[in-house]
Amino acid sequence: MRQTTLRDVAELAGVSPRTVSNVVNGYARVTDATREKVERAIAQLGYRPNVLARNLATGRSGQIVVVVPYLDTPYFAELLQGIIPAARKLGYNVLVDQTDGDRDHEGELIGRGSRRFLFDGMIFSPLGLSQEDLSVRDPDLPLVVLGERSSDGTFDHVGIDDVAASTDAVSHLFSIGRRRIAAIGDQPYPTGEAAQLRTQGYRAAHALFGRPVDESLIISTARFNRADGATAMAALLDRADPPDAVFCYSDLVASGAIHAIHQRGLRVPEDVAIIGYDDIEDGRYSSPTISTIQPDKKAIAQMAVDRLVKRIASPSPVPGVELRAEHRLIARESTLGVATSS
Amino acid sequence: MRQTTLRDVAELAGVSPRTVSNVVNGYARVTDATREKVERAIAQLGYRPNVLARNLATGRSGQIVVVVPYLDTPYFAELLQGIIPAARKLGYNVLVDQTDGDRDHEGELIGRGSRRFLFDGMIFSPLGLSQEDLSVRDPDLPLVVLGERSSDGTFDHVGIDDVAASTDAVSHLFSIGRRRIAAIGDQPYPTGEAAQLRTQGYRAAHALFGRPVDESLIISTARFNRADGATAMAALLDRADPPDAVFCYSDLVASGAIHAIHQRGLRVPEDVAIIGYDDIEDGRYSSPTISTIQPDKKAIAQMAVDRLVKRIASPSPVPGVELRAEHRLIARESTLGVATSS
Repeated sequence: MRQTTLRDVAELAGVSPRTVSNVVNGYARVTDATREKVERAIAQLGYRPNVLARNLATGRSGQIVVVVPYLDTPYFAELLQGIIPAARKLGYNVLVDQTDGDRDHEGELIGRGSRRFLFDGMIFSPLGLSQEDLSVRDPDLPLVVLGERSSDGTFDHVGIDDVAASTDAVSHLFSIGRRRIAAIGDQPYPTGEAAQLRTQGYRAAHALFGRPVDESLIISTARFNRADGATAMAALLDRADPPDAVFCYSDLVASGAIHAIHQRGLRVPEDVAIIGYDDIEDGRYSSPTISTIQPDKKAIAQMAVDRLVKRIASPSPVPGVELRAEHRLIARESTLGVATSS
Repeated sequence: MRQTTLRDVAELAGVSPRTVSNVVNGYARVTDATREKVERAIAQLGYRPNVLARNLATGRSGQIVVVVPYLDTPYFAELLQGIIPAARKLGYNVLVDQTDGDRDHEGELIGRGSRRFLFDGMIFSPLGLSQEDLSVRDPDLPLVVLGERSSDGTFDHVGIDDVAASTDAVSHLFSIGRRRIAAIGDQPYPTGEAAQLRTQGYRAAHALFGRPVDESLIISTARFNRADGATAMAALLDRADPPDAVFCYSDLVASGAIHAIHQRGLRVPEDVAIIGYDDIEDGRYSSPTISTIQPDKKAIAQMAVDRLVKRIASPSPVPGVELRAEHRLIARESTLGVATSS
């Protein structure tokens, strides 16, 4: 028996093949009555749409993949709240892949051996791959890179000015009168490129305010998470000369640091002022609320989707561009205290 | 010119086709030297592995999809930390789809018109689809459902005993001497099935302690998030007879409620004791730390992956089973206070 085709379904249902296709793919609004007719015909004939075969023919899957290091990092979860609706509006479904910052996994995803034919393009936030690694990739994969890398001319890069943002954060701590400012979140080269830009800003703010950098106050952590923030803060509080303020390289690190300060019975900001980075929702509800650097996540998401869809649609290679989103300093209770909080 | 095949690459590189396949798919450990040889041959011949064609031939993509309502809900992000490594250990890559609880989107994903051929199976946490909706689905899609639905015999369901867990949470509030206990997070039928099980537990605890239920203390919210928790708590505090304790249907709701209490200059637990649900990391670091119901997320993740892979591998239909993971009550500062916290 020959295989049932979409045409057979259309004939039995008394509709056009395009209508069957719409029902099958859920692409367009179809009336309930029509949908029912088509579904009855599908059931009667035992029709099985073959999505892979369709993709093979058109070369498109209608899916884009967003690749992030950690889904339990709220910054990425919040960024996705901008990317997903922006992509859907342009007709793309979004799937998300978590790499754990694993260099091999990241390399596979952008390499020639990638499963890329399942996706029309990729928005990628690398962690394990260095800037150089990014150049060894499938040149035909439409790619937009987020975070602290830069474009090599073959893909687009969207990010904020991390050095300027970090300078703003540490300058804020100086401007409220703090003089002994620690940094939590530094990471060594080559995987620590993001962290190093923040350390650069930390140094720049010291230069701006004419203060020497105490290298012993720059604390490295393996990740930008709560546990590492708490551990690093506890070690700083154990010192004979603890800091009076800390620049944390993420709001999660700040949340962990505040927890460690509270565990000692100390107060934020009276004993130690804290500023984070990312402006995740957590920091707007915590006690105290957390001062932070707010990247314009909606703009980052929209730029990334617009560029990717443009790349996907273009028959010829599109030159890579650098796009920069705005950031701003949000001062809350963890630096200003409850009385004067904004 | 005929298209370059995997065999051509193998011949030029002087390795077996299987080795080329391993390099291309990144499936197995290959020495750097071999990988280089293969990659050089691939570049020289301009070979393009066709993943779609391969999937079409084998009927397998090596991918499973996890479908959740919200990626910015830490419970799901944390659950994925169990699912992803468990699936990778069994040779599957995990992709994640966010539905926003949209009934149409959820229906498309499990319907006959789903893009399912891109995946070998699905772990699905429905929100918009009711129990009845779940039965109208592609019967050939290997499916494991999470959360507060139940199996209709054609898919597996993994969850905890929500009624028992909620009874435990509210009983804890009675046992520390609270008498006027509110509930934040109820939702109306049919989409509120999860919430309704928690309300059932709230009522059961009242029955256990011989206390009447004050229906006006059961507050509905649109979502289980911080903003809705804060709004509902503020309304409770505006009443002439505010509660002395609140059972929040998620830790995010609890976080929002605590924020609202602090904004009034009131204290947790002295003025209002708070218990949440989910045991997300946030609640272990916040001030105060949040008492909660801890579902065994690792067990839920492992059971879901094991069942799904079993379904994918089975040539014949596998009867659906109900699997239940453990839960336990974790008492922290938001009910016990700082001095006696565990």
